[in-house]
Amino acid sequence: MIEVEIEMVRLDPDAKTPIVILREKEGKSRRILPIWIGLFEAIAIVTEIDQQTPIRPMTHDLLKSVIDNLGAEVISVLVSDLREDTFYAEINLRQSDGKVIKIDSRPSDAIALSLRAKAPIYVSEEVMAISGISQAIVDSTPEDHLKAILDNLKPEDFGDKV
Amino acid sequence: MIEVEIEMVRLDPDAKTPIVILREKEGKSRRILPIWIGLFEAIAIVTEIDQQTPIRPMTHDLLKSVIDNLGAEVISVLVSDLREDTFYAEINLRQSDGKVIKIDSRPSDAIALSLRAKAPIYVSEEVMAISGISQAIVDSTPEDHLKAILDNLKPEDFGDKV
Repeated sequence: MIEVEIEMVRLDPDAKTPIVILREKEGKSRRILPIWIGLFEAIAIVTEIDQQTPIRPMTHDLLKSVIDNLGAEVISVLVSDLREDTFYAEINLRQSDGKVIKIDSRPSDAIALSLRAKAPIYVSEEVMAISGISQAIVDSTPEDHLKAILDNLKPEDFGDKV
Repeated sequence: MIEVEIEMVRLDPDAKTPIVILREKEGKSRRILPIWIGLFEAIAIVTEIDQQTPIRPMTHDLLKSVIDNLGAEVISVLVSDLREDTFYAEINLRQSDGKVIKIDSRPSDAIALSLRAKAPIYVSEEVMAISGISQAIVDSTPEDHLKAILDNLKPEDFGDKV
């Protein structure tokens, strides 16, 4: 498992859908992984990054509140798989009795929750090997590294909107 | 507490925001209660009413899955209060040890969850007294009862988008 952080959330200019860009936290290469997500989930991620506090709990705040109130804890989230152009994720919860359970999730929901729970985000080695973009490629476009690369990406290159 | 059911979800033609219309399940008057909600939450309600099964779990499906996996159960949801033009709701969960807990929520999230959990929706007597519209008023516009009434409603009459 590779720990990642959120590099940015941006709008894909062609597909008009948001992309969350994850980046390896450690290591020389620090590959990036773009994942197309829904607009609502992008908002849920950005509002938390910007530390905006909504007057009433939004859906991912409610999700966090339910987990807290049931005595559980988000340990981590993992972008675990890529099958038929769709990324899969899992949310790892520790129950009040100490038992750890995995919940199937879209990456976008898992990431929005991880931010609220201050839990680390991981990507499986396999997913990063298939869909990660190395720093060498990023560096080879000196003008505006990420922008140039991302503008040439298509959702179908890396997995469908999830 | 008054048990209600979802009468319809429709788009407010002026404000361009969705409204969920709840209706008293029993009794002579069968008042209706319109609540303005967000677009995403409206989609989450409509997809469940239409029994559409998404390929991957949407956010409210994930919320239900988390509750199930933590051994809890949605007993009911309640539109409990209306303060400063905002409706408040609570989700009543029964934990695995039998303890019942209340979670603060927006009505839209509570309703979207209640449909997935097949749990009843209630409105407090107080909220229905303030914001409910009686069947007599609905009936006084015979042509197209609800449409005529709703087209004259403004969000500020009944509570803000929640």
